[in-house]
Amino acid sequence: MPAYTRKTIDQPVQGSSSEVYWQTAHVSRQQRAQKHQHRSCVIWFTGLSGSGKSTLAHALELRLHQMQCSTFVLDGDNVRHGLCADLAFSADERTENIRRIGEVSKLFLEAGVITLTAFISPYEEDRKAARALFDSADFIEIYCQCALEECEKRDVKGLYKKARQGLIKEFTGISAPYEVPQTPEMVCNTQTNSVESCIDQILLLLRKRGVFLDMKTL
Amino acid sequence: MPAYTRKTIDQPVQGSSSEVYWQTAHVSRQQRAQKHQHRSCVIWFTGLSGSGKSTLAHALELRLHQMQCSTFVLDGDNVRHGLCADLAFSADERTENIRRIGEVSKLFLEAGVITLTAFISPYEEDRKAARALFDSADFIEIYCQCALEECEKRDVKGLYKKARQGLIKEFTGISAPYEVPQTPEMVCNTQTNSVESCIDQILLLLRKRGVFLDMKTL
Repeated sequence: MPAYTRKTIDQPVQGSSSEVYWQTAHVSRQQRAQKHQHRSCVIWFTGLSGSGKSTLAHALELRLHQMQCSTFVLDGDNVRHGLCADLAFSADERTENIRRIGEVSKLFLEAGVITLTAFISPYEEDRKAARALFDSADFIEIYCQCALEECEKRDVKGLYKKARQGLIKEFTGISAPYEVPQTPEMVCNTQTNSVESCIDQILLLLRKRGVFLDMKTL
Repeated sequence: MPAYTRKTIDQPVQGSSSEVYWQTAHVSRQQRAQKHQHRSCVIWFTGLSGSGKSTLAHALELRLHQMQCSTFVLDGDNVRHGLCADLAFSADERTENIRRIGEVSKLFLEAGVITLTAFISPYEEDRKAARALFDSADFIEIYCQCALEECEKRDVKGLYKKARQGLIKEFTGISAPYEVPQTPEMVCNTQTNSVESCIDQILLLLRKRGVFLDMKTL
């Protein structure tokens, strides 16, 4: 396979007319950022089931959307039933699941979209592999910190109960491990903080990172 | 697994405050269309290697980008080296490749992006499976019609030569089949027409389909 190269329209193509016919001008990431008035990045939420990843991701997306940003949330709802419908929850399959999510996030990043992922992603190694796909400026890992007891108490989907009954195998926190992130860009304590205060904290980080090109109201 | 359901902020969530805390407001596709000033759709290019799929897709994307549309091209460059790097070119692997591309296209569609795919996608059944993921209004199959002899003559990447020498196995048109689409939304004859005229033809179809919400200049 040839090396991964991309021509952009910043680098005009030279050659005879027949060559030009079959060569390709690409829209660059910079041009997309200019259009959207923000850079793209990946905000990777990790944490136990019930720790608030999906809630935070969607609430943050809504706020960003209201700020006219181009956004998308990848979560169990839209990935596990589609792209990864062929994968179950063994360690290998979780790894492949996270690999695919990392790669899809990269496509969304390239498309200029602020991409939010909300998956347990329990293994440090898998998260590191996802991180390795990106420039460090583009990847923000957020650990949704919440005690297992609290997550289990919430048990919004009734999954912990089923896991305790042995009806679900390899359930993170009960019968499968969760490796706490060692150096995430941010820790959101979702046990003690409100969704809104977590979002404010994240928006501040995005602002510091220069994600917004003009002075959009936070 | 629960059925695939999505709450949107058009459907406010009811419940006690603790329930509300963990329930999620989603940005609807309609809201994304409003922001982008266009509906999203999937434009699925199919045809032999060298028939101009990628050229057309990127040239069309550039034109749409200049019209301020939110766009993305999925092609071999960004998919085969990433999400589908684990897949080779057997019939089964081609099927899985196209399945994943269909699913990723669906995510981009949901994100409000005009999504262009440029893959040989040689099997009618695989293309049908991709199509089945979408409402008929959202999926536009475009057959890039070009004689094998002409594609082989162009041989931009030198792949036909290698295939003839037996250095590449299962090469579409040489040692693997290409099933011509029976009912594509459009046929672009890339042998006789220029890139620009093909693009004009496609933009007209998008306009007829109501993709653009206001009267953007074509």
